[in-house]
Amino acid sequence: MRAFVTGAAGFIGSTLVDRLLAEGHQVTGFDNFSTGLREFLAGALANPRFHLVAGDLLDLDAVKRAIGDADFVFHLAANADVRFGPENPRRDLDQNTIATWNVLEAMRAGRARRIAFSSTGSVYGEPDVFPTPETAPFPVQTSLYGASKVAAEGLITAYSAAFEFQAYIFRFVSILGERYTHGHVFDFYRQLLAHPERLDILGNGRQRKSYLYVQDCISAILTAAAHAKEPVNIFNLGADHYCEVNDSIGWITAALGLAPERHYAGGDRGWIGDSPFIFLDCTRMRSLGWTPQLTVEQGIVRTLEFLRDNPWVLEKRR
Amino acid sequence: MRAFVTGAAGFIGSTLVDRLLAEGHQVTGFDNFSTGLREFLAGALANPRFHLVAGDLLDLDAVKRAIGDADFVFHLAANADVRFGPENPRRDLDQNTIATWNVLEAMRAGRARRIAFSSTGSVYGEPDVFPTPETAPFPVQTSLYGASKVAAEGLITAYSAAFEFQAYIFRFVSILGERYTHGHVFDFYRQLLAHPERLDILGNGRQRKSYLYVQDCISAILTAAAHAKEPVNIFNLGADHYCEVNDSIGWITAALGLAPERHYAGGDRGWIGDSPFIFLDCTRMRSLGWTPQLTVEQGIVRTLEFLRDNPWVLEKRR
Repeated sequence: MRAFVTGAAGFIGSTLVDRLLAEGHQVTGFDNFSTGLREFLAGALANPRFHLVAGDLLDLDAVKRAIGDADFVFHLAANADVRFGPENPRRDLDQNTIATWNVLEAMRAGRARRIAFSSTGSVYGEPDVFPTPETAPFPVQTSLYGASKVAAEGLITAYSAAFEFQAYIFRFVSILGERYTHGHVFDFYRQLLAHPERLDILGNGRQRKSYLYVQDCISAILTAAAHAKEPVNIFNLGADHYCEVNDSIGWITAALGLAPERHYAGGDRGWIGDSPFIFLDCTRMRSLGWTPQLTVEQGIVRTLEFLRDNPWVLEKRR
Repeated sequence: MRAFVTGAAGFIGSTLVDRLLAEGHQVTGFDNFSTGLREFLAGALANPRFHLVAGDLLDLDAVKRAIGDADFVFHLAANADVRFGPENPRRDLDQNTIATWNVLEAMRAGRARRIAFSSTGSVYGEPDVFPTPETAPFPVQTSLYGASKVAAEGLITAYSAAFEFQAYIFRFVSILGERYTHGHVFDFYRQLLAHPERLDILGNGRQRKSYLYVQDCISAILTAAAHAKEPVNIFNLGADHYCEVNDSIGWITAALGLAPERHYAGGDRGWIGDSPFIFLDCTRMRSLGWTPQLTVEQGIVRTLEFLRDNPWVLEKRR
């Protein structure tokens, strides 16, 4: 395929780029480097089948030019900082919803008619059903991030109906692994580097979350793109188990050989719009033959190893 | 209350303005007159408790100025032309999603913390459950219009979570009655005025739809605003029955004393994104004591009487 990957320099995007190149595809990467890191593309940039375009998705003409004759778009670029919606309520609208509209318009102007999109389990708001299936009751959005992603999903499926696009929508839990640059493992690791004896925790630590290892995430995307044939294909992506934030802290501190004093901010969620329980039913994705290779604990340990081996990433994120 | 009504010169908006004034409230109406008609506000403009601001919701500063010290926002302004999304795929995004974000930002900058919003049964896409409840399975959007409205719903409920707004979201079927200026009754009536012997019909005429009389719609909105107390209150609004387009044609032609030859475009839907069956479960709204006063047939006849008595409306819409 001739793939166009937005957010190509990001955690998940750059990992996808490497996998697509390894499978022999042509890949154009697009990134505005607002959070993406050029270092993650070092391998790709040495490959003649990779082409990098620095540009912003809010510049529709730039997207149209960059997309060229691509036939499959992997739209991963996003504001993925879930927590700060209320401080900057335009950002999710711009970077997630309007940016997605620009991607769809660039596709319509060009040849690409297939799109894979990184949505989020946050679109379920605070569901009543666990594990939560793709057909859960019509959700009420509780975060600006979730709202911006469900809006993007709606644009994509409406374009599918109007212009015969084929859509692959993936509702992710939090993703972990090599090149991970933000999230609770990152925050805890950075705290413990600075003061190994103390750990500050948002909420009461009882929030239940599921996580997925990045290579398992990419395998699911590529499996679905190869085998799911509907005009609109929507998949939850997560592990088949969850942990408490406290479990995660136990694994992190054990891996680091630390026993910090835990200080809880309190409350049953970490921030406004935080969902205290995220656990997705991934039966639909598993029915295509996909199985995650790492447990949540193994993914967390792998993430810590990456952070320990790549201190420059923490420097970049200061 | 001090009400701020967007789309105040529209069909539903102007009817709401009149009802709010009759109940003794202060009302500021906001409209860009892209489809609204100043004539509909003739009565309101004679009332010292009414203030009209001509402006566009895409101009955030104008909205912030106009909203003043309002304490309740009725956000009815929208692109309501469901059919032409694919011809102009930016319009629904701008006029329904981004405009709603501007309304929310203007509220945040001011004092208003309560908002009623005109969403649509189209947000259910093509549901499997009829009548369709508010808790239907997570829908897949099939029209740019539905996508833009579900996006606006998400913004409103996320603002409710982030900024303690109280939200009233109404998922309307098509609304009929006095001041109706677009939709199938309008189209059919105009055709029959021009050529009483022939009627062209989109689709096969078997599409099943429900309609609601505009005064019943306004009564529901005001009942919910008075009695529903949750932070987020979502209600379907429709009649407790539906009709086929062919039934509607029978009532229209009988009321006009005509027997036109019917020419069907064919297919099970009128246009791309048309939902062949819309029938909403309104149990939740009825549980607050609301009951529609007119049947679908009575609403259609009332609409025809309005169009017959107000030929200037057809002139305006040429």
